Amino acid sequence: MFDIIYFLEMIGVVAFAISGMIVARSKNMDPVGVFTIGFVTALGGGTLRDLMMNNHPLYWIKHQEQPILILAMAVVFSYWSRAHSLRESRIVFPDAIGLGIFTILGAQLALDLGHSWFIASLLGVMTGTFGGALRDTLCNEVPFIFRKDQIYASISFAGCWLYFVCQWLLESETLALSIGLLFIVIFRLAAVRFDIRLQRDQSHS
Amino acid sequence: MFDIIYFLEMIGVVAFAISGMIVARSKNMDPVGVFTIGFVTALGGGTLRDLMMNNHPLYWIKHQEQPILILAMAVVFSYWSRAHSLRESRIVFPDAIGLGIFTILGAQLALDLGHSWFIASLLGVMTGTFGGALRDTLCNEVPFIFRKDQIYASISFAGCWLYFVCQWLLESETLALSIGLLFIVIFRLAAVRFDIRLQRDQSHS
Amino acid sequence: MFDIIYFLEMIGVVAFAISGMIVARSKNMDPVGVFTIGFVTALGGGTLRDLMMNNHPLYWIKHQEQPILILAMAVVFSYWSRAHSLRESRIVFPDAIGLGIFTILGAQLALDLGHSWFIASLLGVMTGTFGGALRDTLCNEVPFIFRKDQIYASISFAGCWLYFVCQWLLESETLALSIGLLFIVIFRLAAVRFDIRLQRDQSHS
Repeated sequence: MFDIIYFLEMIGVVAFAISGMIVARSKNMDPVGVFTIGFVTALGGGTLRDLMMNNHPLYWIKHQEQPILILAMAVVFSYWSRAHSLRESRIVFPDAIGLGIFTILGAQLALDLGHSWFIASLLGVMTGTFGGALRDTLCNEVPFIFRKDQIYASISFAGCWLYFVCQWLLESETLALSIGLLFIVIFRLAAVRFDIRLQRDQSHS
Repeated sequence: MFDIIYFLEMIGVVAFAISGMIVARSKNMDPVGVFTIGFVTALGGGTLRDLMMNNHPLYWIKHQEQPILILAMAVVFSYWSRAHSLRESRIVFPDAIGLGIFTILGAQLALDLGHSWFIASLLGVMTGTFGGALRDTLCNEVPFIFRKDQIYASISFAGCWLYFVCQWLLESETLALSIGLLFIVIFRLAAVRFDIRLQRDQSHS
Repeated sequence: MFDIIYFLEMIGVVAFAISGMIVARSKNMDPVGVFTIGFVTALGGGTLRDLMMNNHPLYWIKHQEQPILILAMAVVFSYWSRAHSLRESRIVFPDAIGLGIFTILGAQLALDLGHSWFIASLLGVMTGTFGGALRDTLCNEVPFIFRKDQIYASISFAGCWLYFVCQWLLESETLALSIGLLFIVIFRLAAVRFDIRLQRDQSHS
């Protein structure tokens, strides 16, 4: 059977790794820095998830093709990026993909392990946001989750609940997964594009 | 039977959550930021404790009323604080309560799991100080534990040993718990009030 | 039988603790800060290693003589350093010793637990570099691993693979351990001395 979970996880790893490598290059890091930031961004959220749920061995220790892929990407990216310049704003799309996939997979694993919807939504948000928060902290950026000018964690949280409700209403797990995931990616991109935020600065109101 | 440990833990969670939310609001964070900082401050120390002692499931995963309470507090606090301004110095009291409770409960759990007094005191200090250190780091403050102008970790450490000795001398676990806890809260408040420190700046001596 | 692993671990703990205490003192921290930074530097890497590999109890919980030793060192160091001034550049040597020992011991434990060479090399690098990265972050320094002017993580990674190949070719585990360890220490010191780096700044080329 085609393993949709594993396939999504792989895409999420690649998307987050790209977002990390773009930021690392824009800070002019050397290839080891590019690999390190790519690795931490791609695998940080899942590592936190597995540690919190006591789910051993960690997924990247079990699936060593994932860190190997990140290493290969870092080598290619470091050489390619010498000739090409990348603006940091390019990370919005891969970051949204990674956020969507890891949020839903984190929530889904928590449900599988028998946790409640509420706990599963918290674990989903942590899994989705932690890798990007590490990336931004290590590269001296304010993490998206603490930027007031864009909603981020709220979309991840809402996406979890949409996934739970769809899974409960619909027969198909795959369909529910896809709806939650697409919701997060689309709303995150819309939030950046149309500047949607939870709270206006008081100085402007 | 009335569960004193659980009752204290709940008060500690509320106290640390309030301290986190005050700092988050004073940095003008939106409601998601207020919840996130409250959550991390209240549950960070206990999560570190449970991971280090391999004590699964984590206490906030087992007791989901704790994160639900923090969520409700964040909603109320975000609306309430629009009309009220809070100085950051207001965190001293809830922070001292949280420090006292989590230090003693961390040490007590370590003793229950069969660790020595010395290891239990280290785990107690970590449990008590880690949530506040995360709060201060995420809000770009120098953590209390690294501020030279006030003693913090030393009080937590001394409180652990006082608790161990009382527990050994007295028949009553509850009495020993209370003495250790009150010692930490009172001395912490006194240290802030009377500016007690371990080492004077050399320029002043 | 003489336990070479335990002996090396003890030397690594002492070396990393010294590097942490030197940085803490150069930031003029009080004795509690000196102990905290020493503790975190010496035991951070091994704690991350044990958590990632689910290897409980943590090594410093099992061997409480290690944190006791760090406490004794912090007391002595705090008094001694009042009369002596230390430049931060003095940490290069103890840091290189700690990097070498913890990298190889982390990789060796991962092999013992049945992980592949690639996963073991990643876990070795994490074990070797995490304590120092915590030290530098807490003391507001750019971690060595992210400094472009010196190679650090690459030497740790190369040392792991040299150890694996030696262990595979040679009969003696001890000899293989020693070769990997000496390679890391010597190359790290040479990298600092002769200013070896992976990538020149583009402005200079």
